[in-house]
Amino acid sequence: MKHFRIPLVSVIGGAECTPAEAALAEETGRLLAQNGYGVVCGGRGGVMAAVCKGVNQMGGVTVGLLPGDDGGEANDWVQIVIPTGLGEARNALVARAGVGVIAIGGGYGTLSEMALALKWGRRVTGLQTWDIEGVYRASDPADAVRFVLGEKK
Amino acid sequence: MKHFRIPLVSVIGGAECTPAEAALAEETGRLLAQNGYGVVCGGRGGVMAAVCKGVNQMGGVTVGLLPGDDGGEANDWVQIVIPTGLGEARNALVARAGVGVIAIGGGYGTLSEMALALKWGRRVTGLQTWDIEGVYRASDPADAVRFVLGEKK
Amino acid sequence: MKHFRIPLVSVIGGAECTPAEAALAEETGRLLAQNGYGVVCGGRGGVMAAVCKGVNQMGGVTVGLLPGDDGGEANDWVQIVIPTGLGEARNALVARAGVGVIAIGGGYGTLSEMALALKWGRRVTGLQTWDIEGVYRASDPADAVRFVLGEKK
Amino acid sequence: MKHFRIPLVSVIGGAECTPAEAALAEETGRLLAQNGYGVVCGGRGGVMAAVCKGVNQMGGVTVGLLPGDDGGEANDWVQIVIPTGLGEARNALVARAGVGVIAIGGGYGTLSEMALALKWGRRVTGLQTWDIEGVYRASDPADAVRFVLGEKK
Repeated sequence: MKHFRIPLVSVIGGAECTPAEAALAEETGRLLAQNGYGVVCGGRGGVMAAVCKGVNQMGGVTVGLLPGDDGGEANDWVQIVIPTGLGEARNALVARAGVGVIAIGGGYGTLSEMALALKWGRRVTGLQTWDIEGVYRASDPADAVRFVLGEKK
Repeated sequence: MKHFRIPLVSVIGGAECTPAEAALAEETGRLLAQNGYGVVCGGRGGVMAAVCKGVNQMGGVTVGLLPGDDGGEANDWVQIVIPTGLGEARNALVARAGVGVIAIGGGYGTLSEMALALKWGRRVTGLQTWDIEGVYRASDPADAVRFVLGEKK
Repeated sequence: MKHFRIPLVSVIGGAECTPAEAALAEETGRLLAQNGYGVVCGGRGGVMAAVCKGVNQMGGVTVGLLPGDDGGEANDWVQIVIPTGLGEARNALVARAGVGVIAIGGGYGTLSEMALALKWGRRVTGLQTWDIEGVYRASDPADAVRFVLGEKK
Repeated sequence: MKHFRIPLVSVIGGAECTPAEAALAEETGRLLAQNGYGVVCGGRGGVMAAVCKGVNQMGGVTVGLLPGDDGGEANDWVQIVIPTGLGEARNALVARAGVGVIAIGGGYGTLSEMALALKWGRRVTGLQTWDIEGVYRASDPADAVRFVLGEKK
């Protein structure tokens, strides 16, 4: 049964990003929503805002796990705001909540999330991000989405 | 703006509960959904399952912040599953995520969540639960919902 | 073997406290150290500072699990500073780290720690604090220490 | 003042390790203790056990932040056991608690800790570990210790 469940994909990346990264994130969000997946992310700006924007364009669900305790720091496109108050320890929650992880750009925080997801055996793919053993380097958002949803080995 | 945001109320209580508590929780869930609020809870059985069931009956949104790292432990009526892996430290996240807290029955775990919500100045109300200073003792689910949504001082 | 292990007792209470509570906490710290126990606490002021002061007077060990990410917020008598960055979710760690819990005064944060410790089956005793089912009301620090160390049923 | 404070260095690495890595960790522990530093680690086996063993040989202090809620999973050389119950989210606490981080070998969990420490601007050095931008590659334990204690740019 469990017909109420909304499957999620973790999308991670910097709170500040380039226009090119934002475009990749927005397209990734649209594709995930079209495939029936929601997005869980860190809830802030940059890549996180762009992916949430894309998801909303296609009527999908967005969840933001914020580091701080103030819901007001969420970007405008987060529907479900969880102000964890855990600081960067919340990265572990973001990495775990999705069936897989798509990283777009990003710095050390993003790297920490990729590492944890790999530790837990999640599918991890990246666009213009860290080149770590075990991460599938996607050619574009469609490739990243296919990989993380398991349609591609 | 922020027209995408879904406001949440935290509903807490035991993972096992009496039929009377379950009925209260289910009715609470229906009323919250009818008022346009989603429910965030610990995602497991008992009161948590009953409130999620009620929310779904009225087309609302349910979020479950699980203590473990396995999404499979969520009840059937949780839509958004966040397996925090934090154990009972996740109680702090449940208490914080809602605009207020409704406690129904419950043991020491529920008490810990009520205490944290009170510390953070959240509105906290209870049905058949701990009698702690600062908690509004509601007469029924409708009274609890009115209180937590701020329609009643 | 494990002859290196230092057993700990959790001592909890407000970050601000009365002189009477501070005196109780300091005496509690001295007694725990004399019994070969270290103290784990929230690392801040008030009861936490007073108990750490007492422990140090008798050459014991003090551990402070801070809510923030800045070690500088620890009181002067904490030897081992752990800036958890978890906010009040760190209360769960304080409650769990000791073989038992002694509460002195305190508000809602203290209550949340007592509740979690009771949930986990820890011995919990209190001096001038919340009157919750399952908490042993001690008459003085010596009584509290005897109880938490299991010398008294 | 604060003359009671014991400064800590975070030492990270796999819960299983090679004899060569264990030898490096044990030597690192001895050197840190000789320099007046305690060690904070994940509290388990492999590199974590070896470094704690070395610290104890020189009379230093060892702190173990365990992922689980059972203190019994700590290695024999941990003096201060903190069973966080946070799972791998405790990695963030390990990375933050030291003035700097020394990584020895290790897998994805170690990588997540290095990434967080770098994000927070901590000095991070490694022996036979991940080659990430910002990590100083030490030639031996003495070199790693000098770097992390700031004696070397």
